[in-house]
Amino acid sequence: MRLLLLSNSTNAGEGYLAWPEPHIRAFLGEGPKRIFFVPFAGLRASWDEYAQRVRERFSAMGHALQAAQETRTPLTLAAEAEVLVVGGGNSFQLMKELHETGLAPLIRERVRAGIPYVGWSAGSNVACPTIRTTNDMPVVETPSLSAMGLVPFQINPHFTDAHPPGHAGETRTERLLEFLEANPAATVVGLPEGTALRREEERLSLIGSKPARLFRKGLAPRDLWPDEDLSFLLDS
Amino acid sequence: MRLLLLSNSTNAGEGYLAWPEPHIRAFLGEGPKRIFFVPFAGLRASWDEYAQRVRERFSAMGHALQAAQETRTPLTLAAEAEVLVVGGGNSFQLMKELHETGLAPLIRERVRAGIPYVGWSAGSNVACPTIRTTNDMPVVETPSLSAMGLVPFQINPHFTDAHPPGHAGETRTERLLEFLEANPAATVVGLPEGTALRREEERLSLIGSKPARLFRKGLAPRDLWPDEDLSFLLDS
Repeated sequence: MRLLLLSNSTNAGEGYLAWPEPHIRAFLGEGPKRIFFVPFAGLRASWDEYAQRVRERFSAMGHALQAAQETRTPLTLAAEAEVLVVGGGNSFQLMKELHETGLAPLIRERVRAGIPYVGWSAGSNVACPTIRTTNDMPVVETPSLSAMGLVPFQINPHFTDAHPPGHAGETRTERLLEFLEANPAATVVGLPEGTALRREEERLSLIGSKPARLFRKGLAPRDLWPDEDLSFLLDS
Repeated sequence: MRLLLLSNSTNAGEGYLAWPEPHIRAFLGEGPKRIFFVPFAGLRASWDEYAQRVRERFSAMGHALQAAQETRTPLTLAAEAEVLVVGGGNSFQLMKELHETGLAPLIRERVRAGIPYVGWSAGSNVACPTIRTTNDMPVVETPSLSAMGLVPFQINPHFTDAHPPGHAGETRTERLLEFLEANPAATVVGLPEGTALRREEERLSLIGSKPARLFRKGLAPRDLWPDEDLSFLLDS
């Protein structure tokens, strides 16, 4: 399997999809690719607007992109595409649509067969076994929290230790420790903004200049570094 | 209906259930009451530990408290209690247990019949039509996001505008605007820490020294103040 799972599309104060661009270029390689894009996580802009924004960025990298809502036969389009890209937004809305359209099993099957997958934020959440480590609000009912399971561990995108001073609500780390109480066999990777995980078959590595944070029940959270071989996470 | 819906149990740096104590005392009135407590939202401490902590605080106010897990017949205990109290923690875990134990319909029925209800954080989320405006991570599957509907609007507890500098993830307000895109007929009250809503039959008011924030689709968010009559929200 070939995966590029980004924490986020855009760092604060930077251009849209700017920080990931060199990593997406390196991941997709030379030559124009036909990309199938899933904008279902988008809620505050229309899917057409969302797709247009993403198309502009991928066009600049030399690729042609069609979005799921631009065709009456998204399953056919997805089945014929050379790359599958799933954008961020709300993970519940995204998973609901992936279930209802039948795209979830198709994407899983194609990625398992070797088609490259790029996701950011919610698009990284749905590559995990479940969306139980999303930061998103459950604004719609999804038939199940189960997701596509392209990796055997959970990702928490936009991971941060920052917490507003004087705020008593749970920190991100506290929320992930709650997740481990309820899911004691699970592994979670907290992926800070500006980082990504790249899977090349049975090899996994961290991209970016910051460490990610590994959470397992009963073990102290520890940092994972970009020069570290993270392939052991594929056995989790 | 008589409801006291608190944003949070405890302000940063203060004692457990300290800020709400005068409001709980005023709400419950004179004379010892038999309280039924629901600790199901707790994940990082045991339900027994959680109940003990809450019992100490309510004992100090002169009331006797029994928790749902302390009896083999929680439905009977809840049916006979004089006050129903639902504590905070994880809203998904709480709603799952409320559904599975059958306590959700019983609590709703008793509160509609006039039994006072006190909830904080997740305990306020489940008093709303759904838990779709929780801040909690979906760490377990709940059969449905539907909740007890003791008020016709949604509460966002621990509401804050604060956002870590340099963090690109969604602000709380952005998440609530996403909720309204997906649920355009809904009304949301963002309830900052240290505030609560008190319902006395068809009258609703805000408690605390800070404004709450009202969100409706197509309208600019606006502040709600403690001296304001908020009863119009009961028609929403």
